Amino acid sequence: MTVTGTLYGVGVGPGDPELITVKAARIIREAPVVAFFAKDGATGHARRIAGAYLTDAQEELRFTYPYTVEISKRSTAYRQAMSGFYDAAAARLAAILRDGRDVALLCEGDPFFYGSFMYPHDRLADAYPVQVVPGVTAMTACWDRAGVPMTRGDDCLTVLPGTLDEAALCAQLGRSDATVIMKVGRHLPKIRRALDQAGLLDRAILVEHGSMVDEMIVPLGEKQTDDASYFSIVLVPTERVTS
Amino acid sequence: MTVTGTLYGVGVGPGDPELITVKAARIIREAPVVAFFAKDGATGHARRIAGAYLTDAQEELRFTYPYTVEISKRSTAYRQAMSGFYDAAAARLAAILRDGRDVALLCEGDPFFYGSFMYPHDRLADAYPVQVVPGVTAMTACWDRAGVPMTRGDDCLTVLPGTLDEAALCAQLGRSDATVIMKVGRHLPKIRRALDQAGLLDRAILVEHGSMVDEMIVPLGEKQTDDASYFSIVLVPTERVTS
Repeated sequence: MTVTGTLYGVGVGPGDPELITVKAARIIREAPVVAFFAKDGATGHARRIAGAYLTDAQEELRFTYPYTVEISKRSTAYRQAMSGFYDAAAARLAAILRDGRDVALLCEGDPFFYGSFMYPHDRLADAYPVQVVPGVTAMTACWDRAGVPMTRGDDCLTVLPGTLDEAALCAQLGRSDATVIMKVGRHLPKIRRALDQAGLLDRAILVEHGSMVDEMIVPLGEKQTDDASYFSIVLVPTERVTS
Repeated sequence: MTVTGTLYGVGVGPGDPELITVKAARIIREAPVVAFFAKDGATGHARRIAGAYLTDAQEELRFTYPYTVEISKRSTAYRQAMSGFYDAAAARLAAILRDGRDVALLCEGDPFFYGSFMYPHDRLADAYPVQVVPGVTAMTACWDRAGVPMTRGDDCLTVLPGTLDEAALCAQLGRSDATVIMKVGRHLPKIRRALDQAGLLDRAILVEHGSMVDEMIVPLGEKQTDDASYFSIVLVPTERVTS
């Protein structure tokens, strides 16, 4: 009889390796197999963050995305390729778990907040022991690094993906006391227009690579260019005054 | 000449002491003074979480809230008492910083997400060096512990305080793919009615003391009673299916 291994979805936090939790560091150190997603030709952001906690005794398992931004995320080709990719990754993970070995699958930020971990989780959680280890989300690190209290007292917060079309962004903005816009990247011009229409541009702050060595924080209204990396977040903190 | 100390706002995470970040653990261990807020007669939730990382060599500084739930948060008496309380706390912290000593001020979850740290921050950040150390928010730990992927792809998330009145809750619900309701406690009956009206009760999950030893996770529709602790969160995860 073989004991089944456990799949750990491990949140590695926003970028600074020291912003990983004590638990995540332990799980990564102890797992016989450490798995991660990465785009073709890159180290993998989660793998880079976790590097300091890995040992030579561990097996590394890399899953290379078939696409990242090469084709539209709404195309059938993209969806089919990604679905097949996650099926294959889940099958590979399942074989290791059946072999009685634990796997730590690394995830940027938190596994259940816009994370790729959800796709293997969907495929494996009914059949294998799965544990999710929380991580500091990128937005949390961004507002802390920017030095802006985000929500107070009775405030409402809305989190929007910058991938929404302009009308959808406009419809959502201004409904909350505070707003976070994730996945900014090439959507910055559209996001800027939507914030301007909602009268929120003056309060908006752009954070690129929050908590990482190349971090940049700038009031969005003062930024002259429309370039922004994928790891950018726009914050509109609460206006509420102190008590 | 004296070098001024730094005020660290240290997020200690959702409750499990192992869910503190490596950086927070280091800052707490190294700070000559560790400060925290607590209600009268209690150890203090943040202090309890950080306990494992404190040493005998450190000075502890406790700030006891004048009120927690004894009088209405909207009353003038409450506001005046709290404002005076935070003024006094800030003055105490400032004296330590002027003395050249660093202070780690402990905060449940993350300091800038509905945290009391914002009030000393408002009073001190312009005059003293302040650094905010991110923490895992309670909501993050709750959705991970409940095993529910919260947001995927293009999803929008709304975070609402349960303290909102029923009409305001109803107006906000259903605008996003996923919703978190914080500060549930005695507001549970109202929250339940609002979720029911929005057609979301079947998807709602109540998490009490997420990541703590007495954690309880239950579909809200199956809970027969209307009691819930202050450390409860209601989650309405996305309905989006896997890719």
